[in-house]
Amino acid sequence: MAGDLAFQIHLPELKKQTPDFLETIYSVGNGHLGVRDSNPLQGNSDLYLGSPGLFVNGFYDYYPLSYGEKYSNYPENDQVINRLFDPRYLRIQIGDSDSATSFFDSKILDKNLDMQTGKLTETFEVTTPLQERFHLILESFASLADKRLYGIQYTILPLNFTGPITITKSHPAVNQLSRTSVNDVRVKESEGLLHGWPLKDTVIPAMVITTSRSQQALTAAWKLDQVNEDVQVNQLSAEVPGYQLKVAPQKNTPIQFSFMYGLSAISTNLAAADQDLLTTVAESEFQPELEHSTKKWQFFWQHSDVEIDGDPDVQNSLRFNLFQLNQSAGRDGLTNIPAKGLTGNGYGGQYFWDTEIFMLPFFIYTQPQTARKLLQFRVQTMDLAVQQARDLGFAAGATFAWRTINGREASSYWPAGLAQFHINADIAYAVDHYVTVTGDQQFLRDGGFELILQTARFWLEYGNYTEIEGVNRFGINTVTGPDEYSALVNNNYYTNVMAQHNLASAVEYAQQLQNSDPDLLTKLAVTPAEIQSMTDAAKLMILPYDKCSEVKLQFQGFEQLSRLPLTEIDKGRFPLLLHSHPLTLYHYQVNKQADTIMADILYPAGNSLAQQIRDYEFYEPITTHDSSLSRTMFAILAARIGEETAAYDFFTQSVQTDLRDLQGNTANGVHAGNLGGSWMDVVYGFAGLVNNADQFTLNPNLPKQWQRLSFKLQIADSEYQFEIQPQQVTVRLLSGPGMQLVIWDTPVILSSTDTTKTVIQPEV
Amino acid sequence: MAGDLAFQIHLPELKKQTPDFLETIYSVGNGHLGVRDSNPLQGNSDLYLGSPGLFVNGFYDYYPLSYGEKYSNYPENDQVINRLFDPRYLRIQIGDSDSATSFFDSKILDKNLDMQTGKLTETFEVTTPLQERFHLILESFASLADKRLYGIQYTILPLNFTGPITITKSHPAVNQLSRTSVNDVRVKESEGLLHGWPLKDTVIPAMVITTSRSQQALTAAWKLDQVNEDVQVNQLSAEVPGYQLKVAPQKNTPIQFSFMYGLSAISTNLAAADQDLLTTVAESEFQPELEHSTKKWQFFWQHSDVEIDGDPDVQNSLRFNLFQLNQSAGRDGLTNIPAKGLTGNGYGGQYFWDTEIFMLPFFIYTQPQTARKLLQFRVQTMDLAVQQARDLGFAAGATFAWRTINGREASSYWPAGLAQFHINADIAYAVDHYVTVTGDQQFLRDGGFELILQTARFWLEYGNYTEIEGVNRFGINTVTGPDEYSALVNNNYYTNVMAQHNLASAVEYAQQLQNSDPDLLTKLAVTPAEIQSMTDAAKLMILPYDKCSEVKLQFQGFEQLSRLPLTEIDKGRFPLLLHSHPLTLYHYQVNKQADTIMADILYPAGNSLAQQIRDYEFYEPITTHDSSLSRTMFAILAARIGEETAAYDFFTQSVQTDLRDLQGNTANGVHAGNLGGSWMDVVYGFAGLVNNADQFTLNPNLPKQWQRLSFKLQIADSEYQFEIQPQQVTVRLLSGPGMQLVIWDTPVILSSTDTTKTVIQPEV
Repeated sequence: MAGDLAFQIHLPELKKQTPDFLETIYSVGNGHLGVRDSNPLQGNSDLYLGSPGLFVNGFYDYYPLSYGEKYSNYPENDQVINRLFDPRYLRIQIGDSDSATSFFDSKILDKNLDMQTGKLTETFEVTTPLQERFHLILESFASLADKRLYGIQYTILPLNFTGPITITKSHPAVNQLSRTSVNDVRVKESEGLLHGWPLKDTVIPAMVITTSRSQQALTAAWKLDQVNEDVQVNQLSAEVPGYQLKVAPQKNTPIQFSFMYGLSAISTNLAAADQDLLTTVAESEFQPELEHSTKKWQFFWQHSDVEIDGDPDVQNSLRFNLFQLNQSAGRDGLTNIPAKGLTGNGYGGQYFWDTEIFMLPFFIYTQPQTARKLLQFRVQTMDLAVQQARDLGFAAGATFAWRTINGREASSYWPAGLAQFHINADIAYAVDHYVTVTGDQQFLRDGGFELILQTARFWLEYGNYTEIEGVNRFGINTVTGPDEYSALVNNNYYTNVMAQHNLASAVEYAQQLQNSDPDLLTKLAVTPAEIQSMTDAAKLMILPYDKCSEVKLQFQGFEQLSRLPLTEIDKGRFPLLLHSHPLTLYHYQVNKQADTIMADILYPAGNSLAQQIRDYEFYEPITTHDSSLSRTMFAILAARIGEETAAYDFFTQSVQTDLRDLQGNTANGVHAGNLGGSWMDVVYGFAGLVNNADQFTLNPNLPKQWQRLSFKLQIADSEYQFEIQPQQVTVRLLSGPGMQLVIWDTPVILSSTDTTKTVIQPEV
Repeated sequence: MAGDLAFQIHLPELKKQTPDFLETIYSVGNGHLGVRDSNPLQGNSDLYLGSPGLFVNGFYDYYPLSYGEKYSNYPENDQVINRLFDPRYLRIQIGDSDSATSFFDSKILDKNLDMQTGKLTETFEVTTPLQERFHLILESFASLADKRLYGIQYTILPLNFTGPITITKSHPAVNQLSRTSVNDVRVKESEGLLHGWPLKDTVIPAMVITTSRSQQALTAAWKLDQVNEDVQVNQLSAEVPGYQLKVAPQKNTPIQFSFMYGLSAISTNLAAADQDLLTTVAESEFQPELEHSTKKWQFFWQHSDVEIDGDPDVQNSLRFNLFQLNQSAGRDGLTNIPAKGLTGNGYGGQYFWDTEIFMLPFFIYTQPQTARKLLQFRVQTMDLAVQQARDLGFAAGATFAWRTINGREASSYWPAGLAQFHINADIAYAVDHYVTVTGDQQFLRDGGFELILQTARFWLEYGNYTEIEGVNRFGINTVTGPDEYSALVNNNYYTNVMAQHNLASAVEYAQQLQNSDPDLLTKLAVTPAEIQSMTDAAKLMILPYDKCSEVKLQFQGFEQLSRLPLTEIDKGRFPLLLHSHPLTLYHYQVNKQADTIMADILYPAGNSLAQQIRDYEFYEPITTHDSSLSRTMFAILAARIGEETAAYDFFTQSVQTDLRDLQGNTANGVHAGNLGGSWMDVVYGFAGLVNNADQFTLNPNLPKQWQRLSFKLQIADSEYQFEIQPQQVTVRLLSGPGMQLVIWDTPVILSSTDTTKTVIQPEV
């Protein structure tokens, strides 16, 4: 299996990479925990240039937010994911050399991440200050079978010495870690206010870690698993839990030992340890657990893999993206996907609209059970979203936090935070999309409909009627769209389209529930008058349009702004947000990322090809792609409108964003939105998938570099495999009853008796 | 003189007032220094509920600004005026009672501020914890003759005891003062980082006070002046400069002593003491200095008094306002008028547009030499304004700091700070206004023209051409207008009108200088092409207008916003800015203060009466007057359009804002902009003065409560007295050659041979 190179991340020229970049790329995780790929001997040293650590999804602390001028209802606190101890770390003493007090030079010989098993294998050549040399081999994985577990195995091979080695494995100070300091507004760092108190009289070393302000706790435990017979093992004291191993290997004779770590679910009980975790960890073993986990990875790839013939680099990168996505997604209904996954602390480990718009499509179509859990996270923060609307002075509806871990708003710069109300429609869109694709009507009753209803209600409150050219229209003023190089505008095109559909889907589902579950409507106090208001507002929504140039306007008045001459700006000044005052950026026609054209992508129906071309040609030259969410959207539209070269350029940059560090900040964590976006590029862009609610259509535009593209989708209760070759699509029904699809305008009906169809592209 | 009650501030029911309100109202100052009217025995006690202190105009320190998210070119530091020691403070020991360690109960018997002399007289009845009782009488003044000087005289009258009293007058800790803590975003407090180091071997006690971060210094010295013969006087040690007085008065026998204080000009030399100050203070004496100062106050009133017959309260309040204005104005060309004068630390002692738009008219017309000095302050910060424009990415022009002491931007919340670019046009307007009224052409050559030119250049950079309804127009996008309940809008009406005139006056003065001083144009690189660009931009400026309701639009799109139902909002939620999120306020048609209608007021020409009425009727109901700058403007427009009752209501509230604490925060300092605005209400509103550049017109609308209104104005080299009675105006030429004025459309020509004219109001 390790022989399948397309499933290996095996970067060349590791010496040229910075430690913190490698830590991100080779991090392993499972949606509950993520471990950065630190240097195991240097990670606690001030001389180390990386940022080691373990992150547990949703385990955060509060940090007071500072304001020069603090106005009413500003959030008091930021929420920042905790950087925990480094489970990779071990202390080695050889004679007078001690890795804890002197710097062991570690040359990386090899790193390989096997995405089929989730196992990371690394080899270091280590030289102590006294010139003892040895190979250190690490194998590690985060279990996808039991998400509390992380396993790591060490092999030490002495190269030029014989004699006693002492190995200590302990984590007394939970976050006294070396880390690179970053001067970047997008990075949030927790500041060491964790408390770790050791558990006494446990079979294995364990501690409870608590936060001082958010009042969260979790149990961490670790167990020495397998070890050579000639190793002497001591447990450290109860005050400093851990192990000490003493061994005197011969030169060129390896010693091997492994540890299993457990990180419990997050608790609000600061006093009680998770005894079940201790039992589980004590009973777990490295090799069997790796095998359980591997089976889960096999299941993942069986349904989610995308095969591309013709561009091995892209094939490998895309798999890396899907692998990292799966490593990042919270699956407990209480957590989501941080903007940097569980690979770093960029954006404080907080959740954004990135999940719903960029990542959920992949999960909805290939891992719908995970998609449901991710949406549940929003549902369970519903009360806070209702409160947020009240706090802002609006009498009805709900507005979700723009950035959050616990459901409360954590943005201190509200013009590019709170004011991005589109997140409400984005979340509602994702619920609707999930239900439409999966057919999971129960989710509507499990909070999904209420979410769509309450966000729609917010639009009725926040929007208002106004007369435009003599016609009564519904507008939404004072919002910030996805593009953060403008703020507090009136009638942002994307926001209004999304709100329009938010309102329309509330109406549609209410009408369905009128028959299927009228009690739910009664419980939620839905009235015919309200439904009529939503119908009207959706119908009369303002969608700004420049009649002169015949393009959609990003917002009212956008056509009046002058253009920032992007080609004249020094390359060193990008991303602009780090070098220009926001006011200067807001003053011009300049985009950080896709905004208006996303409406074309999410709701192509009703947009002529000519319109999409004009929109693309207008917005592409004014977009800096300073956000990693940008190119992925431009790739889709370019593919759909036949801009083949541009589409492939955008896609290759998007798909390799992290592996090639194209944004320059992968060191702070992967760009999780972009990971999902690269899947959308393939399926929405090159395969041309459109969910028109009533039917699914495919209009493939296969890049000329590719001979074949194959992927699977789950729609309703059926799973399909699509195999796309130049001018030809073969679709197979793998399970389920099947339904009608449309490929190149040809209706294709599959069923259990007729499971395969091939469609040839019609001549243009 | 003290008998003229209309010149006395003699508040009744002092017991009902809070200490910090009285401290503001009875503060004395002279534009260089201001002393709050603290309790002289309690001011250093934690039990005292006031905020004592001495402020020196322009003497500030930096405080790091905090941002949850800090973007490029955000100011690093705030600037906050230093709260210095309290020169009113003295320590009294009677037997075992010590005012420094126990609380002496001080009952205020009387406070009287004589505005004709600038002298404050107060009587306290003091009871020690051991029941010794005495009267303490204070007389104090800030010298208007030598602005470094402050004098204070104490009289102690023992009521029920005989025996030794020890009095200590020392200020070792420069700002260890009691002060009330205020939770209000508008108040900035310095935080005790001053250093005071005593001077040795000086004839009088003295110290140099330095700031840690802004690297400013000043010298403070004080001298015991007059004292009873039977008082034993010791100078304290060189380490703790000051005096100790020992005296053993008989019951009912007063002892009297006075001190002269000196506060030098601000220096950047942290080491050197101001020896000249020491000499001056050592030679100064209370009574003669008070007489010098009184003469200056007489000169002030001679030119600046406004007499109103018919409403004694209003007469008294208006004089208070003019008195406080004169106490607040920096006159050294390096300082300006803080938003709270020198009476408190509200807004950090910073300077705003308030000076140019609300306060300068009074000075321009009645104290033009002070007006010039105030404008010089802006001229000397020109280089910083040029740098600010470059830092924001604009290739030409200058943009002044929205709030500042030293010329650098100090606003941390830039949407309601930096983005208020109208300040540039406001300052240019004031220069133009000053030159037009005074005829001081030299000021144009002393930096005035360069200021108008550089601000006009900024508009050319910041604005741009756009097509509106098929016509090429010049617009100014992404600005915040004066009304801070909206932000980052396009084509704010007020801003655009002001920018239009800024551009037009640059053109006009350039054309004048073409003949009178072409070298200046060459030096400033003014080209005919640039002049043409300015002409065009002014001519094609967008001035948003709602054709449907025929009112000026505060900004493009304002008509689309829904109205906040002000009458339905609980009174406790005003001012809205303290209780609502800015985003909520920005979302509605709701005004904090006058915005659009100010354009009608400053540039009435071209606005029909009907237009002004419509504008007033549209904006008045949506204005909260949460800013103290608001009512004063509404009063002017109401007076001009004949809304007599409303005009008088707005005016009486404006004129009594501080004396009656109508904004509820006079404790933090007077509302200096409003002080000047109340003069504008009388002269611009009720007298109906309009400066049309080519001629000055008067259209009086005397309130029915008034029998007579009399004031003086200096226009060009002439001074006029206007005496307005119902249906009649008498104008006298007091000095100078005279010129043509227009009163009720009647041309009035005065000259040295024909000095008085009376005009009767024509029948309507």
